[in-house]
Amino acid sequence: MPLLVMKFGGTSVANLERIENAAKKVQKEVERGYDVIVIVSAMSGETNKLVGYVEGTSKLYDAREYDAVVASGENVTAGLMALRLQEMGIPARSWQGWQVPINTTAAHSAARFVSIPRDNIDAKFKEGFKVAVVAGFQGVSPEGRVTTLGRGGSDTTAVAFAAAFAAERCDIYTDVDGVYTTDPRVSGKARKLEKIAFEEMLELASLGAKVLQTRSVELAMRYKVRLRVLSSFEDTDENSGTLVCDEEEIMESKVVSGVAFSREEAKITLFTIEDRPGVAQAIFGPLAEAGVNVDMIVQNISEKDYDEAHPGAVTDMTFSCPINQVERAKKALEDAKTAGLIKYDELIIDTDVAKVSVVGIGMRSHAGVAAKMFSALANEGVNIKVISTSEIKISVLIDRKYMELAVQALHDAFALGDA
Amino acid sequence: MPLLVMKFGGTSVANLERIENAAKKVQKEVERGYDVIVIVSAMSGETNKLVGYVEGTSKLYDAREYDAVVASGENVTAGLMALRLQEMGIPARSWQGWQVPINTTAAHSAARFVSIPRDNIDAKFKEGFKVAVVAGFQGVSPEGRVTTLGRGGSDTTAVAFAAAFAAERCDIYTDVDGVYTTDPRVSGKARKLEKIAFEEMLELASLGAKVLQTRSVELAMRYKVRLRVLSSFEDTDENSGTLVCDEEEIMESKVVSGVAFSREEAKITLFTIEDRPGVAQAIFGPLAEAGVNVDMIVQNISEKDYDEAHPGAVTDMTFSCPINQVERAKKALEDAKTAGLIKYDELIIDTDVAKVSVVGIGMRSHAGVAAKMFSALANEGVNIKVISTSEIKISVLIDRKYMELAVQALHDAFALGDA
Repeated sequence: MPLLVMKFGGTSVANLERIENAAKKVQKEVERGYDVIVIVSAMSGETNKLVGYVEGTSKLYDAREYDAVVASGENVTAGLMALRLQEMGIPARSWQGWQVPINTTAAHSAARFVSIPRDNIDAKFKEGFKVAVVAGFQGVSPEGRVTTLGRGGSDTTAVAFAAAFAAERCDIYTDVDGVYTTDPRVSGKARKLEKIAFEEMLELASLGAKVLQTRSVELAMRYKVRLRVLSSFEDTDENSGTLVCDEEEIMESKVVSGVAFSREEAKITLFTIEDRPGVAQAIFGPLAEAGVNVDMIVQNISEKDYDEAHPGAVTDMTFSCPINQVERAKKALEDAKTAGLIKYDELIIDTDVAKVSVVGIGMRSHAGVAAKMFSALANEGVNIKVISTSEIKISVLIDRKYMELAVQALHDAFALGDA
Repeated sequence: MPLLVMKFGGTSVANLERIENAAKKVQKEVERGYDVIVIVSAMSGETNKLVGYVEGTSKLYDAREYDAVVASGENVTAGLMALRLQEMGIPARSWQGWQVPINTTAAHSAARFVSIPRDNIDAKFKEGFKVAVVAGFQGVSPEGRVTTLGRGGSDTTAVAFAAAFAAERCDIYTDVDGVYTTDPRVSGKARKLEKIAFEEMLELASLGAKVLQTRSVELAMRYKVRLRVLSSFEDTDENSGTLVCDEEEIMESKVVSGVAFSREEAKITLFTIEDRPGVAQAIFGPLAEAGVNVDMIVQNISEKDYDEAHPGAVTDMTFSCPINQVERAKKALEDAKTAGLIKYDELIIDTDVAKVSVVGIGMRSHAGVAAKMFSALANEGVNIKVISTSEIKISVLIDRKYMELAVQALHDAFALGDA
């Protein structure tokens, strides 16, 4: 029997009516002949309520107990979804993490999958059950404690089950109807993509297109799980949404697939640092320890190249990080300076920046993408502050006020609005 | 290390402040040198919310899924209580039913304990944990599904743990401060009992004194678990509340310990039934099948005694049952009549009755209790409709309007207000 994994997020199961609506989508797939594993999140708002209880009880809470409390929201939805499916005449059974079992590491609140044995659920399918409803976001540690997976955990659960059960596809139902060439709120010409490669989705996800969590896309890419993103709130069929898949499945891809952006960026520059081996480690080591997620890094070309005869060479270092980590970054750097670990004359923080990126696997085989991007920005008078590139992505840091303008200009320049 | 079981009901853990208050009571016992097993209910209102979800999803719900959903409320409280105790510096760990494991039958929503192995919790105590917080009301079936125990399940969980762990005592914290000689709202002279025997408590519980559920008292009696009922909302010490214990522990007991009553009674009389062997079975069989809880039964003395020469003897039969089962009882009897299983001329239903009972283990060795009771009621002009007696209890059915009067008169007659 072909098997499908379907995942419904918090807004898709926010109340009994929406659970019924989601159940109807499951029913359709059962009628098409699939065995289905449904992964559910907690009803939206529930997890926040439970987190509030924990934080109201204990500031420095024990992550084991946090997980035990917070995971209960998904258990409720799993039971309700199974009941709703039964009500429709579909044999369904709910599964909490320990019942499957979803074996994870003991890293509470950020647990990773160790194994998902198929035996228990397969036995139920053999008994005639058509649907296994699994509580997402949770697992069980080697010590038999409840674990949770951290942000985006239910997406990751869905992908892991699709891999473990060799599912034909993993459908992620959410509150958007697919992945777009850019955010439709920024460009009216944004177009829904029919397919996108894992690598591209990964860049888009990590760049702030919040449709799918990075970790679930990574997992899907590793296990070649075909992911489909589609809407819970619309009628959907086999061709709805966007398929995230191996690039081999995408016959003809454009050079650039999408334009991503992030407003939540800050730029930090250290002036007059020593230009010598080990200085980058001296700077970014303390930042990493302080939990600062450094993104783009640019080191100016020094006036004098370093060599042993000229140990006094100096340069400047610029990096970007999420805007809410700026204070932490500043403190880490000042502490490192006080401790004599690094030297700098001045530390300048610019919190008025945004990041804009073009992403596309076609870039690998096409030259001139960067040049086209820079000229499109120059034509609009947008000044580029920092540039960073990867194999399938070019990102620039610009003044935040130009962000929308830059996105629209790039969307036009790469003709992303055209099918 | 001596071990104590402490149970907190829904109102005692209704919010974070009350959980903190309960945790302080646990702290006191830990400071006195006890290892403690805490049994918690769901925050009050939570279980009703979850039941509402289930009933809103499916009318004829699958009890397995009902249990999976409904049990999650206790998991939340268990985690929060463990966190709060940790916050006070007390090593505590939460336990869901499957983690202990609390092995039960597969009778979902009315499961019974099969075994509670001590190994896992004992291992934690040996590691230095002082408190195990156990989610009440739940267990796990042989098939590995979540079960719940039905009404009063958390009290029963507490007693079962006290038995399994040979606890010194099982303290049931609730919203009353003990067991009274009668309901203080009915008699201002009601007095809190220091001790009461299991048998007496059992009669009081089943007669409508809602402090403890019958099943938990039965279990406590069977395993000789000393139960203490005391208030969550008052300062308590070793002597607070009421101890429910073996009668041997009660040095000098009064003949009568308490006056119980129930308003929710109805009286049903069948006139002119056959007076022959098997007629009682013919009447009460169909009632039992219809789920009617028949309580008191009185058969009138027949005008002519039955013998084989006079098969036509007739009599009347009267019984009482909960008022909300009257319609069901009526239908069962009428159906039985239509089917020719029983004969009667008339069926009279009286829903304006109440039951008043005096309870006391001292009755076993004292004569004249019934006479004293009847004369006290006669003095107040209360007519007795039905009488029923057991070894340690005498119950009467009277007009409901006289109930308070009867309770007060009996409370005075047996001098229950005197310490």
